[in-house]
Amino acid sequence: MSETRPHKDPTRTEQAPRSSSRHRSGRKKSAGRRLRIIPFGGLGEIGKNMMALECGDDIVIIDAGLMFPSEEMLGVDLLIPDFTYVLQNRDRVRGIVITHGHEDHIGALPYLLQALNVPVYASRFASRLIALELKQKASKLKPELHEVKAGERITLGSMAVEFFAVCHSIPDAMGLIVHTPLGTVVHTGDFKLDHTPVIGQPTDLHSLALLGTRQVLLLMSDSTYVELPGYTPSESMVAESLERIISDAPGRVIIATFSSLVSRLQQVLDIAAKNKRSVVVTGRSMEGIVKVAAESGYLTIPPNTVSKFEQIHNLPNDRVVILTTGTQGEPTSALVRMANKEHPQVRIIPGDTVIMSATPIPGNDELVSKTIDNLFRLGANVVYGSVSKVHVHGHGSEEELKTILNLVRPKYFVPVHGEYRHLARHAKLAQKMGVARDNVFVLNNGDVLELTESGGKVTGKVPAGDIVASGPMTGELDANMLRDRRLLSRDGVVVVTASYSPDNGTLIGVPEIVGKGFVDMRGNGELLRGAQDVVMAAVGRAHRTSKERSSLEAQMRDTLSGYFFSKTHRRPVVIPVVTGL
Amino acid sequence: MSETRPHKDPTRTEQAPRSSSRHRSGRKKSAGRRLRIIPFGGLGEIGKNMMALECGDDIVIIDAGLMFPSEEMLGVDLLIPDFTYVLQNRDRVRGIVITHGHEDHIGALPYLLQALNVPVYASRFASRLIALELKQKASKLKPELHEVKAGERITLGSMAVEFFAVCHSIPDAMGLIVHTPLGTVVHTGDFKLDHTPVIGQPTDLHSLALLGTRQVLLLMSDSTYVELPGYTPSESMVAESLERIISDAPGRVIIATFSSLVSRLQQVLDIAAKNKRSVVVTGRSMEGIVKVAAESGYLTIPPNTVSKFEQIHNLPNDRVVILTTGTQGEPTSALVRMANKEHPQVRIIPGDTVIMSATPIPGNDELVSKTIDNLFRLGANVVYGSVSKVHVHGHGSEEELKTILNLVRPKYFVPVHGEYRHLARHAKLAQKMGVARDNVFVLNNGDVLELTESGGKVTGKVPAGDIVASGPMTGELDANMLRDRRLLSRDGVVVVTASYSPDNGTLIGVPEIVGKGFVDMRGNGELLRGAQDVVMAAVGRAHRTSKERSSLEAQMRDTLSGYFFSKTHRRPVVIPVVTGL
Repeated sequence: MSETRPHKDPTRTEQAPRSSSRHRSGRKKSAGRRLRIIPFGGLGEIGKNMMALECGDDIVIIDAGLMFPSEEMLGVDLLIPDFTYVLQNRDRVRGIVITHGHEDHIGALPYLLQALNVPVYASRFASRLIALELKQKASKLKPELHEVKAGERITLGSMAVEFFAVCHSIPDAMGLIVHTPLGTVVHTGDFKLDHTPVIGQPTDLHSLALLGTRQVLLLMSDSTYVELPGYTPSESMVAESLERIISDAPGRVIIATFSSLVSRLQQVLDIAAKNKRSVVVTGRSMEGIVKVAAESGYLTIPPNTVSKFEQIHNLPNDRVVILTTGTQGEPTSALVRMANKEHPQVRIIPGDTVIMSATPIPGNDELVSKTIDNLFRLGANVVYGSVSKVHVHGHGSEEELKTILNLVRPKYFVPVHGEYRHLARHAKLAQKMGVARDNVFVLNNGDVLELTESGGKVTGKVPAGDIVASGPMTGELDANMLRDRRLLSRDGVVVVTASYSPDNGTLIGVPEIVGKGFVDMRGNGELLRGAQDVVMAAVGRAHRTSKERSSLEAQMRDTLSGYFFSKTHRRPVVIPVVTGL
Repeated sequence: MSETRPHKDPTRTEQAPRSSSRHRSGRKKSAGRRLRIIPFGGLGEIGKNMMALECGDDIVIIDAGLMFPSEEMLGVDLLIPDFTYVLQNRDRVRGIVITHGHEDHIGALPYLLQALNVPVYASRFASRLIALELKQKASKLKPELHEVKAGERITLGSMAVEFFAVCHSIPDAMGLIVHTPLGTVVHTGDFKLDHTPVIGQPTDLHSLALLGTRQVLLLMSDSTYVELPGYTPSESMVAESLERIISDAPGRVIIATFSSLVSRLQQVLDIAAKNKRSVVVTGRSMEGIVKVAAESGYLTIPPNTVSKFEQIHNLPNDRVVILTTGTQGEPTSALVRMANKEHPQVRIIPGDTVIMSATPIPGNDELVSKTIDNLFRLGANVVYGSVSKVHVHGHGSEEELKTILNLVRPKYFVPVHGEYRHLARHAKLAQKMGVARDNVFVLNNGDVLELTESGGKVTGKVPAGDIVASGPMTGELDANMLRDRRLLSRDGVVVVTASYSPDNGTLIGVPEIVGKGFVDMRGNGELLRGAQDVVMAAVGRAHRTSKERSSLEAQMRDTLSGYFFSKTHRRPVVIPVVTGL
């Protein structure tokens, strides 16, 4: 097909992987017998998952997630994948398939769909969350959203995608079996092998086992928890601990968990009902998801269990459960407000039991610890940490990853979802489990892996950097800007303004010096006067060599920086502004 | 004594704990029968340990440590305790006793001794590190430094301090038995119960057991690892894993650990010697401490084991071990330089084995993960994490803390060293172990706990905030300054300079707008021109209501902030400077 189809986008051929342009104009059959795997996110990082499968003239996109940046990316709210390659090949994109409704798999959809209106295929629960996401972003988009079920099969150009049930920390998660002209690809999505999930089905091992008896071309499998030995415990294990803690609690129970972890919400509601406690739900995302999950039948609310704050005032404390957001210590979350005595309805009192039914995502440990400390200070008994058994996570541990490798027995293996060390470790595991060394690929985002009948090879690189999304805007991550912010955050800024008289090469009046985030200049007259003196002296010196504004300003900046460092051992960013030149 | 001694410092009485001033002028016997415990750091935080024991007219200070600030304290290098109370009572301070040589116990000494020249008592190894610390800070201080041994007893006014051996992740750590007129106080320092430490003695359980048969007034015990169930494994366990990894490694072994963890260094040297590998030591603090530890006999270097980089060039890779700093992902450390291809002597190559013989301190996880990822990317095999058994930590776990409580059987208990949740948990543990509920005190820094024959009570509060040390300077932590830095770090800064003509109430020329850490203004002419327009319009409006410079500037700031947010969804700090008024 490719040779006859008009190129709508003239830049397309240029941007395609280098080695492929020659082949693309080749024979149809050969083009169809070549499969490209291009990850745009989710490799070497946790979050922002997105990948393209490309076969002949057809591209299928798997997931489009966002990622919350690390601490050092000052002022950056969200990161999304770079869509350049996808948009340059927009006429070949047949659809987007979604594995599940977590933000790191659907969060970039509002941005992607804005630029590329193609059909989206997702489970029912994921579809509801996509709609919620679009609504919260005040997006006017009406995407072509198809609800699909595990077991269903859709055709996208020369590829067919079959969905299979996986168990994960959100309802309705699915893995993908992609039938391509070159062979079968299995993508696990995020999964664990929970044989007794509280809601939904266990991971569909039968389908995978059956596939394993035929030749599977490629397995792509979740690497997030490859570092953990053994098996991840079942969600149902949590019930025992929660039941014991809630029934023993002398007063209110405040329980924080992930809002999309609907099975956990279900357990809390059931245990509360059994213990004749009323449940109040607080926190924006928790209220939103409880509503969606209950409406769509994923969450069954026991009769007379959920109340509003107004209704529980007269209840004794040991008849109350408060279900809340804030497991990650997010400053504006309901739990953190309680810990800081800022929640409009809840004041923590001695006798309260707070359950942290979650683990901190790496990078959030300090915020979470501070929240726990503050809750203890207010007299609450806080139950947290792995010893307390009030949380199990949603990804398979080492033995589960081995199980999948053993069942699927793929020819090629690409570890996905995880930081680089996880991918490297998962790659080794696959080799140990019998995948040929040369058939295991640890990819970086943007790598183009090309599989043909004769083998696999990384043949090129496409743009796959971090794109900053802030509000409705997106833009490339600007390293200079981040460097400036880092400098500003260390010792603040000092602005020095001077009016220059070119006639006699001196300043008119004294220079004006204003600081922000540096030392208190007004309370430190000596420092200020000294700074004015060195600026005036610098202008005098500069005058002799150059009357250029830029050199005058550079001289002022350097002199003042040196002066401040000698006096304060700090290095504020100095911004000089000279007028009159 | 107190009533006859002249008050050298007239402010002293004012600053003493509120409720105590009345008693101080009372009878000698009663004054001596009152013990005050005042923590200045180390409670509700990890690090910055310092405490005063006060009895009648005598004050003994325990430790004087520093602390590295959390991420959110932008630009703050170090935190030290507030010395106000100690300096106001300087004539009563009899000496400083040091439990061990870690920075969080000795790092504030250079600052404290600068203001208060009193004798310091420390173990031999801690003394060497104090000397090293003073040298590195280029301090000219020559403190009166006394080397003491476990078993030794010194008299400090009405109190006598006896030192006892404890096992910790640094040689020569000691706990304290303080004999006071009111009774015996036991302070564990940092400890674990390692029965087979690689160097030094196990924790002296005999002395504690013996004390337990008499009445101990007060126990203060390390709470850092109270969250961990069971026992902390012995340092000797690490030997097996290290031996196996080093002897199996196909190429070089690069091992990172804490420089003061001399027992670990000893194990590495011994295993290297046994495997006929040469060891090169790299990283400033590692080189410094290896030298000090070898000179003072804490580290025994096997013959022909330690080499320099020049000497190993001709050795095969499997004959080399590199011992390095960088376990916490510190950006300038030797290991991080290797991971970033910036180390002058070491390029990581496939076949290298890197051992992270340490765990990340909370808050450093991301830096450490990034370092491990980068090492994997360069082809190294990285061994890390608890499963690999290449590290054990230096603090006692829950059962060890229970052992101490059980042996000492104190009347009063004060948990020390840990964040608030650790203290709260340790307090509960003590109650479970039989200490009366009312005799357990979870203190905050600055609390004055007063013990008398009739009971214990928090009777006041003294200053104990965070003091920022940067270079040789110290100053109070300024919340406004941090807030400004936080704002600057989010969206940068914009300076708008305008020259005002009071005669006709307009600006002369167009306002000058310079940004830093905001969007690229030069590359965005439309944004810049729009900003100039709104500023000029704002000045026109302001002119009608007020000709005050401050109101004109406020108007410019508000208008420009609003404009930038509407255009970019960012909120830079706007600094207006109007000249001509």
